[in-house]
Amino acid sequence: MDERITVAEYLGHRLRQAGVEHLFGVPGDFNLTLLDHLTTVPGLHWTGSPNELNAGYAADAYARRKGLAALVTTYGVGELSALNAVAGSAAEDVPVVHIVGSPSTAAVSTGRKVHHTLADGVFGHFERAFAEVCVHSETLTAERAAEQIDAVLLAARTHRKPAYLSVPMDLATLKVSSAPLNTPLRQPVSPTAELERDLTESLRTATRPVFVVGHLVPRYGLVPAVLKAARAANIPIVTTLAAKGVIDESDPLHFGDHAGTMVDASGGLVTDADLVIELGTVHTDLLTGFFTHRVGDVHFSATRAGGHDVLFPDAVAALARVCEDLRFSLPDKSSQDRPAAGHSDEDAVSQESLWSVVESWLPPGTAVLADTGTAFFGSVRMRLPDDTVYVGQPVWNSIGYALPATLGQGLAEPHRRPVLLVGDGAAQMTVQELSTIARAGLTPIVLLINNDGYTIERALQSPKAGYNDIAPWDWTSLAVSLTGGAVWTRTVWTNAELRRALHEAPADEFVVLEVVVDAFDTPPLLKELAERNSGGAK
Amino acid sequence: MDERITVAEYLGHRLRQAGVEHLFGVPGDFNLTLLDHLTTVPGLHWTGSPNELNAGYAADAYARRKGLAALVTTYGVGELSALNAVAGSAAEDVPVVHIVGSPSTAAVSTGRKVHHTLADGVFGHFERAFAEVCVHSETLTAERAAEQIDAVLLAARTHRKPAYLSVPMDLATLKVSSAPLNTPLRQPVSPTAELERDLTESLRTATRPVFVVGHLVPRYGLVPAVLKAARAANIPIVTTLAAKGVIDESDPLHFGDHAGTMVDASGGLVTDADLVIELGTVHTDLLTGFFTHRVGDVHFSATRAGGHDVLFPDAVAALARVCEDLRFSLPDKSSQDRPAAGHSDEDAVSQESLWSVVESWLPPGTAVLADTGTAFFGSVRMRLPDDTVYVGQPVWNSIGYALPATLGQGLAEPHRRPVLLVGDGAAQMTVQELSTIARAGLTPIVLLINNDGYTIERALQSPKAGYNDIAPWDWTSLAVSLTGGAVWTRTVWTNAELRRALHEAPADEFVVLEVVVDAFDTPPLLKELAERNSGGAK
Repeated sequence: MDERITVAEYLGHRLRQAGVEHLFGVPGDFNLTLLDHLTTVPGLHWTGSPNELNAGYAADAYARRKGLAALVTTYGVGELSALNAVAGSAAEDVPVVHIVGSPSTAAVSTGRKVHHTLADGVFGHFERAFAEVCVHSETLTAERAAEQIDAVLLAARTHRKPAYLSVPMDLATLKVSSAPLNTPLRQPVSPTAELERDLTESLRTATRPVFVVGHLVPRYGLVPAVLKAARAANIPIVTTLAAKGVIDESDPLHFGDHAGTMVDASGGLVTDADLVIELGTVHTDLLTGFFTHRVGDVHFSATRAGGHDVLFPDAVAALARVCEDLRFSLPDKSSQDRPAAGHSDEDAVSQESLWSVVESWLPPGTAVLADTGTAFFGSVRMRLPDDTVYVGQPVWNSIGYALPATLGQGLAEPHRRPVLLVGDGAAQMTVQELSTIARAGLTPIVLLINNDGYTIERALQSPKAGYNDIAPWDWTSLAVSLTGGAVWTRTVWTNAELRRALHEAPADEFVVLEVVVDAFDTPPLLKELAERNSGGAK
Repeated sequence: MDERITVAEYLGHRLRQAGVEHLFGVPGDFNLTLLDHLTTVPGLHWTGSPNELNAGYAADAYARRKGLAALVTTYGVGELSALNAVAGSAAEDVPVVHIVGSPSTAAVSTGRKVHHTLADGVFGHFERAFAEVCVHSETLTAERAAEQIDAVLLAARTHRKPAYLSVPMDLATLKVSSAPLNTPLRQPVSPTAELERDLTESLRTATRPVFVVGHLVPRYGLVPAVLKAARAANIPIVTTLAAKGVIDESDPLHFGDHAGTMVDASGGLVTDADLVIELGTVHTDLLTGFFTHRVGDVHFSATRAGGHDVLFPDAVAALARVCEDLRFSLPDKSSQDRPAAGHSDEDAVSQESLWSVVESWLPPGTAVLADTGTAFFGSVRMRLPDDTVYVGQPVWNSIGYALPATLGQGLAEPHRRPVLLVGDGAAQMTVQELSTIARAGLTPIVLLINNDGYTIERALQSPKAGYNDIAPWDWTSLAVSLTGGAVWTRTVWTNAELRRALHEAPADEFVVLEVVVDAFDTPPLLKELAERNSGGAK
């Protein structure tokens, strides 16, 4: 196939080849021509959000499941509102292509003072700001447009990082050859002979190896490959809090979540091991229990493995080959029964009882989205049923992320009901997206934890400070206003009410449960984190 | 006075000296220590917003009236969400100091991978992003903290631009000498002899001079100085759309608004003049009627005047001195009666009748905040009563700005009732701030123009494109949910209903009027703009 198609169509076809079916973003005058032509590509659907930050969060969650997402904004006023979301994608290793409709090449070449600029005739400010968080960026030119599009998409996919593509409004309709589309974009392949030799040597002398699985494993779609390697050689697995849920907790190879001495469901498996292989982990404060972790003997990152320059998918494939010829004996998977939570049905919901009630109700097959704050630090200690997707942001920790992420997750996997766990302070950040979620026909269950403000900060410092109080909202009637009434709502105060509401909530409707919790109550993990943070991060 | 005070207190006292009484922003773990100490400074009040973009917009509006505003956010996740607002302050020449609580000097010096970073051990990414839009930036050090604070505040005040101040969390409580506080910060003074000589020469040979007043005049608080100069010499004044309202329309010297051939209430005064002196104007597409303006003979910007390096306040003072010895004869101020709008009371509200009804109702002494879109391009053609503040964003044009700006304007001038004019698409961007406005005890009148989406974009291109439709919200019940019910609401469809609602709206309550307008109806100025834009900006 070789015909002349517009740059916008070329981009659209490349996105489709990468599995993208939905475009997130907000229209603006510099991207209208681009949108008009991008949305003619079969199978690409526009999902507009009320603002760009929300759209960026939705795109991030979508990319986690689909391997790529496209976020479309307009120059200046649009793109900059999304920078926090795109930076979050950088921190959390998520491949979002941020496509910005920008002023015409004529306006740029004559330095014209058009709106949405700083009125200084300079057009590079915002691309440079994004270069701080993007793995690759291009402003399209007439000469190299198709090649530049390919470079941006390939960089995002190869590194699982955000990339930036600026499309001058006049170039959106420039005609280019469709011929390159006949060859799908392929990530480079790295040689692995030396890595395989080293891994063989390390594993041959080990008796108690363990895999520590980090979030790059699901980001690269390598959960099956890692599981295959572990199964072949009988190697136990622990997961960081950033990879929670990626391996079923019922799997005999899975020994629970691990974050240094702060969280260790494995019963000392990592410290006792004689070979720790870290697969796609990142050593940040929260994920290492404030740097109390045992550093692995072998570490795989996106571009390095065991000291060699090997891309992550190739490194995992090498590991799987090595494991085929090995067989270890698996330690006992100790019973991980926790003490029963001491709460009665008539008690007010607490940060202990809440997660225990949710855990006992949560069905298999959902996607749990937990916002930074008490929602994440409470729910991350839940045992999840099999086939549960768990979405958090433990590296970037931007409150407000999970609500719009519910839109992206829901569109990426429509068969999986989203369960959003979000505090009131976080929900106030990005509440608009409730309406987009409803408009998209999704039917999540939202647990809105109303504790009158920023309880995570009350736990960290100055519990009584006025700045942690927020304006009180009527959450259930707000949900009705934003969704055209297509929502089932309830407010609960006691454990019995919560349990009943979860069971009565209709299966095929948008559900918002407001759960009232004391402002000064915090999950145990958050208390511990606050203590360590006061020594660690300062 | 010379005592040891904390860096946070030092900063707070400097802000107070510059007239700041309110702090805008959102708390986050890296700024909590800073906030704890900043809020101990007498006369500084914390006004938290649901998110950082909204806080940034509020700070911008506050700075326009007070000469400085402080926006406090946390590192990474907080600050980046505000970048669009801060860039808007750069484009519109507004002095906002963006104060960011950042990781400790220990974390930075050891490259520790803390949360809210990209997990790459690099701490300069976000300061560099802000450097693209800020006139000055500093990350405080133990050695030079007080000096750095002074440099940032002085730069913001001198240039009327945003500036960036990063406060590592451990340095917020570092003790410094209070002695420098005895000397208030003073902007440098420029020599003006050459400028005065040139101005004298130009004006002595002129017979029909005119002043074109741009937005730097109100930004620097120089409206009285310019008026004094014009009165002394009897020189007529026109205002750009960015300076609408800064001079009473009843003033005999004021000949109306001017934007090239697109808007000219002056009846050709500028094209007929033999000396055009532009005072603080900026030549962007919208403000020049798409570059159809007559370029002034003499131009004053923030740092240059008539070809000399003179700061704006000094240049205006020089002009005033020169004008003292001159006397021109003022042209006739032609009656500017426009044809009466042809609408009847029973008609549905249209984009013509709407602004005519609002114009005839609007009392003196309010602050009108008009969001980019039909609200700005409709209302900017209204005649304003005396003593009206008019707030728009005609350079940056970020939709959603005006709603949070109502908070900043209201706190800056509590005696002035805010009148917010905002479309539904814009209001969806930043709607949360309705709750902060209510919580602050402000009682604005909000005209929520509900036309089912982005009508400004329908006017510009592809009127039927699906991306211009937005989710329908129940605006009046939403307002009730966000304000704890402390709001008077009404929905109107006809001119008579609108007129009645405006007159019945209580004077001392928060009022939200939803005005239903057809999705494809646009104000005449916006139609013209769309036509010029399709040729101009592309």
